[in-house]
Amino acid sequence: MKKHLLTPGPTQVPEGARLAMAREVIHHRSPEFKAIMAEVLDGLKYVLQTTGDVIVLTASGSGGMEAAVTSTVPRGGKAIVLEGGVFARRWTHICQAFGIEVVRHEIPWGSAVDPADVAQLLSKHPDAYAVFATLLESSTGVEHDIETIGRLVHGLPALLVVDAISGAVSTPCYTDRWNIDLLVVGSQKALMLPPGLAFVAVSQKAWRQIDSIQPQAFYFNLKHYRQMLASAETPWTPAITLVAGLAENLRQIRAEGIEHVWARSAVLAQATRAGVAALGLKLFAERPAAGLTAVRTPPGIETAQLLAALEERFGIKLAGGQDKLKGQIFRIGHFGAIDPFDILGTLAALELVLASLGHRVTLGSAVAAAGRVLQDPRPMAAGKD
Amino acid sequence: MKKHLLTPGPTQVPEGARLAMAREVIHHRSPEFKAIMAEVLDGLKYVLQTTGDVIVLTASGSGGMEAAVTSTVPRGGKAIVLEGGVFARRWTHICQAFGIEVVRHEIPWGSAVDPADVAQLLSKHPDAYAVFATLLESSTGVEHDIETIGRLVHGLPALLVVDAISGAVSTPCYTDRWNIDLLVVGSQKALMLPPGLAFVAVSQKAWRQIDSIQPQAFYFNLKHYRQMLASAETPWTPAITLVAGLAENLRQIRAEGIEHVWARSAVLAQATRAGVAALGLKLFAERPAAGLTAVRTPPGIETAQLLAALEERFGIKLAGGQDKLKGQIFRIGHFGAIDPFDILGTLAALELVLASLGHRVTLGSAVAAAGRVLQDPRPMAAGKD
Repeated sequence: MKKHLLTPGPTQVPEGARLAMAREVIHHRSPEFKAIMAEVLDGLKYVLQTTGDVIVLTASGSGGMEAAVTSTVPRGGKAIVLEGGVFARRWTHICQAFGIEVVRHEIPWGSAVDPADVAQLLSKHPDAYAVFATLLESSTGVEHDIETIGRLVHGLPALLVVDAISGAVSTPCYTDRWNIDLLVVGSQKALMLPPGLAFVAVSQKAWRQIDSIQPQAFYFNLKHYRQMLASAETPWTPAITLVAGLAENLRQIRAEGIEHVWARSAVLAQATRAGVAALGLKLFAERPAAGLTAVRTPPGIETAQLLAALEERFGIKLAGGQDKLKGQIFRIGHFGAIDPFDILGTLAALELVLASLGHRVTLGSAVAAAGRVLQDPRPMAAGKD
Repeated sequence: MKKHLLTPGPTQVPEGARLAMAREVIHHRSPEFKAIMAEVLDGLKYVLQTTGDVIVLTASGSGGMEAAVTSTVPRGGKAIVLEGGVFARRWTHICQAFGIEVVRHEIPWGSAVDPADVAQLLSKHPDAYAVFATLLESSTGVEHDIETIGRLVHGLPALLVVDAISGAVSTPCYTDRWNIDLLVVGSQKALMLPPGLAFVAVSQKAWRQIDSIQPQAFYFNLKHYRQMLASAETPWTPAITLVAGLAENLRQIRAEGIEHVWARSAVLAQATRAGVAALGLKLFAERPAAGLTAVRTPPGIETAQLLAALEERFGIKLAGGQDKLKGQIFRIGHFGAIDPFDILGTLAALELVLASLGHRVTLGSAVAAAGRVLQDPRPMAAGKD
């Protein structure tokens, strides 16, 4: 059976990248590989909208988060974490593992961080080394207002560190303009690669802080990576084939234009939401993201049964809820290589599966609603619905 | 021009694995992927000759080394490092980054650790948490006598932690029988994969020590991984496609038999050494490894020129020396997918290049000497020449 992967990561990998990754390995200290890495570093700066340094780590996204924590906050130092889901909470867990004092700002899962609260936290904790935030909290489908938070942190000693593992490239993110000091990105999301690489964009302000502290890091010590940037190398052997695949995807994204990529996700987000609304389903996120839609499982339906039926009958793989959201929501990814065909097919299958599980459905209604959006897409502001 | 990669990592990747890695990504929490991971965990136990746990990390080999250090030795704890090359020294650097007190046992690069010295160190430092050693020091081509060192550490409180990134699968390594407590392996060596995965085999003795200390780790905290072993999962998203490629290679290795794989490398090592000896060249390593041969660059020849000519004229990629060995040696890898054809071709090209650089060469002599070994291979004890 054909598989249709619409989870919020890993996501579908374009054929060009898959074939590039199937080529024979080349040596990571060779001029050929350095040329590919230089191209990748340049392409990452473009898609992340930064003129600063971008570090390539061979690790999952969580490794990129650890690099951002351990390179910027010393043991015993204080950090503010804006916690509204599984992934934001990971900032707290990483900080705690390295003896960092965490000011946890916990908000209900599904809510967006209120920038006014961040302003209060910053004035109450002027000694914080960093504010750890999330662009797209993929466990809840919320897109947080990083632009406004960036304005609040700008000019203060604290760094703004953003988990954009799912958010980057799926929604507008202007690293420099928004005053983001460290931006963490993963390969297996809107960059359309398999997992295995993480990226960290680093501002000048961040480097100054990094240079001033004693890092609790070796493999993830960003200073080791900075030393090698001039020759487009990494201190430890990188995941060579994934970098080669990334070069391919970045070429595609650049040819299309990053604004166009963002706009495509936004249109698919609108279409998906129109579709699920037509089925009487509710969104979970207060401030829904362009990259994925978290839908509340309707009463009387079991999430696990719904997901299993979509997979068994149609080969469609969606994600359920994580942690305390297990059984309460399901999540549809619409970033990266996902296209209108994927979304229309998924909505059509969702209609059929919901109907067979006893939910009242007018067949064709979700697809029609999504279709109307696709026929006449209106520009959608980031994070707005 | 066709490329012939004979560096000591990355190494050539078989077509089966390359095609497996080009397949569409599947979700890492799906039953399909868990089945692949379970097969991989089982295959790794076989090739590493252990009944203990094997942890799969998404990282370079150095990440595996960091996991072994930070999970087993607390800040302020003492560790013995057996240092005889670039990679052994990395143990020291990692320990120092995490505030661990290092007893450095430095031996000349190219020499093998004398087990008698290890016995002395152990009696002088009974409070050491671990002895950090190297099976195949790929910067010098030395294979250290881990079996004997294992007998010395056995029964003491200290753990024996072995960097087998280049050594595992290229030479006999009996993790359990040799009393190795943590064995670190990389994907891009004799396991014939691209870089991006590291593996750590963990003994029961090691788990007890891991459970007794406060780790300075999050991403590399081995306890997080142990929790997920029962369901064949990893705590963070793994490099899915590399794991799929690994399953393919492990199937091949198992079909061939690990002893046969080891024997193949040993024969190629003998053939390579016979070939370079016929050219009047000297080995660098006191106790040469089965996985790679480090050759002293003959007087009057520039290493960089020699390597460039091999690459430009024949597409052959060998490695030079690292750090203080730069310009003094070159290194030929003969593990993983390297076969007699690769070695004969490399020796033939080496004859021609050396001749054109002014070295006195009888054309055909190296190939003939290697050929005689291949015609009548005699069993070679590990680490002996």
